[in-house]
Amino acid sequence: MTISCLLILDNNLEISAKERIFDPLPSWNDGKTKQKIIKFVENVSKSDGIPIKDRIAVFDYDGTLLPEKPMYVQLDFLLETLLTEPNSSSKGLVDGENLIKSGFLAYTGMTQPEYEEKVKEFLTTAQHPRFKKPYTELIYQPMVELVKYLKLNDFQVYICSGSDIDFVRILANLTYGIPPENVIGTAIEKTFEISPQGVNLVRQSKLIEPLNDKAGKPVNINRYIGKIPVMAVGNSDGDIPMLQYTSSNPQANLELLLHHDDIQREYDYNQGAEKALILAKENNWTIITMKEDFKQVFPFQN
Amino acid sequence: MTISCLLILDNNLEISAKERIFDPLPSWNDGKTKQKIIKFVENVSKSDGIPIKDRIAVFDYDGTLLPEKPMYVQLDFLLETLLTEPNSSSKGLVDGENLIKSGFLAYTGMTQPEYEEKVKEFLTTAQHPRFKKPYTELIYQPMVELVKYLKLNDFQVYICSGSDIDFVRILANLTYGIPPENVIGTAIEKTFEISPQGVNLVRQSKLIEPLNDKAGKPVNINRYIGKIPVMAVGNSDGDIPMLQYTSSNPQANLELLLHHDDIQREYDYNQGAEKALILAKENNWTIITMKEDFKQVFPFQN
Repeated sequence: MTISCLLILDNNLEISAKERIFDPLPSWNDGKTKQKIIKFVENVSKSDGIPIKDRIAVFDYDGTLLPEKPMYVQLDFLLETLLTEPNSSSKGLVDGENLIKSGFLAYTGMTQPEYEEKVKEFLTTAQHPRFKKPYTELIYQPMVELVKYLKLNDFQVYICSGSDIDFVRILANLTYGIPPENVIGTAIEKTFEISPQGVNLVRQSKLIEPLNDKAGKPVNINRYIGKIPVMAVGNSDGDIPMLQYTSSNPQANLELLLHHDDIQREYDYNQGAEKALILAKENNWTIITMKEDFKQVFPFQN
Repeated sequence: MTISCLLILDNNLEISAKERIFDPLPSWNDGKTKQKIIKFVENVSKSDGIPIKDRIAVFDYDGTLLPEKPMYVQLDFLLETLLTEPNSSSKGLVDGENLIKSGFLAYTGMTQPEYEEKVKEFLTTAQHPRFKKPYTELIYQPMVELVKYLKLNDFQVYICSGSDIDFVRILANLTYGIPPENVIGTAIEKTFEISPQGVNLVRQSKLIEPLNDKAGKPVNINRYIGKIPVMAVGNSDGDIPMLQYTSSNPQANLELLLHHDDIQREYDYNQGAEKALILAKENNWTIITMKEDFKQVFPFQN
């Protein structure tokens, strides 16, 4: 056991050193933000840094790891479902207030494999309306590098998203290589059912409290991980409690807030992030400005 | 990334080979059960075996990794709380039917660090009434070896317990070295509270559905991990759905049921496992008989 751990550690330290020479974050512009991230990861990885077991990083998904404009991807999935299945029992449920809940309820009664199949089918055919690319290509290249850099330095990288946990598990695995067990999201009740054909988990119509947004994020981070993160990355007011929770860690910690201020390459808006941007300045959280910190935004924008 | 993974793999294969020479399960008697386990793990670990990402093993806790007689350890914790805090608001709640719920409700209003402190304090002072040892020493040596053997072969080992997730997280870490993020248990609602002194998670009085027992186990395995295990280890009827779920995995899978039949070294009972013992025979699950398969039960019984 001990031998195993030591070899793994050496191995990663070696790669980390190599990465430094070759720049671990080539799609980030040189500047304060990039320096701050690299300095933090290097300090964490020192022998007197943060123990490997405590290197927990949490990332919001929509708006942090892919665009949330003109709508977040799970909503597009819902609209696609309603268009292709006009008799869906969920159609009557869709109105402004219940739009978020509708995205969960529309699939009530589906088994786990049926739902996963439907999500995968959507992701292979759907395209982002502006960029005309599948959502699986709508990843921020600098964030891909950041996730990889953290993993190479023995961080456990988790997603913490308000969207359906089952939806994000598939998307996050296809895009950022994050495995299902490292995804926290809003979950729906399921029942375990046994039939002569076998066993199945079946989606019900009730959401598990708390929804994984706002104060629900730290509550669920505690429920799923049982540790306070040392790093959190978000982009909106819904991420504030996750950032506050992370900054309460008595160990060194880093909070990042992605500001969408790049109308040319992505979008430019403060809406839904007004409070977070103020709190970031008050609490010394690092604001990533897409316009200035991202050398490249998407892999396809070379 | 690739280099890192390859080196880690080589490293573990090497240790696995060494372990084979030196016997990975020295506290197990030679016999069909031990052979079946070793054969399974060796097959899983072959290059055409089961991909590392899918090597998920789930273990029940009470009765599977430590004795559940004369009472499960969280219940002893509750009784200790009621004895030392006779004015506890939870006293009136304790009756036969509500005993399980009382073990959660007695700590309503406590912050996360306060509760963890209380559990740790209990674990350093409480003793098992028969063996006169702290619960942290009440581990089955053969199970310690099995968990270690699985980890060396790149399994992710999870606990899936009906007891309080926060209680088991501490105990499982101290005894089997299982980290908090690999523990699934029954969870209580918490709120995220901000005060001038900082942020806190505070225990509320409502249990999260489903309780992590019976059909709740596969539901929560799906919720927390998002993968079907390839190996499950239990000891009672409450573990049946977890074993059924695991045996539904289209990949190779192994189900183990620990039978307490050793009155001399531990306990001898079928109670609460009657149905599981029948289903084990019907479904080709492997019954571990403590009396015959365990060469040694506890580390202190040399």
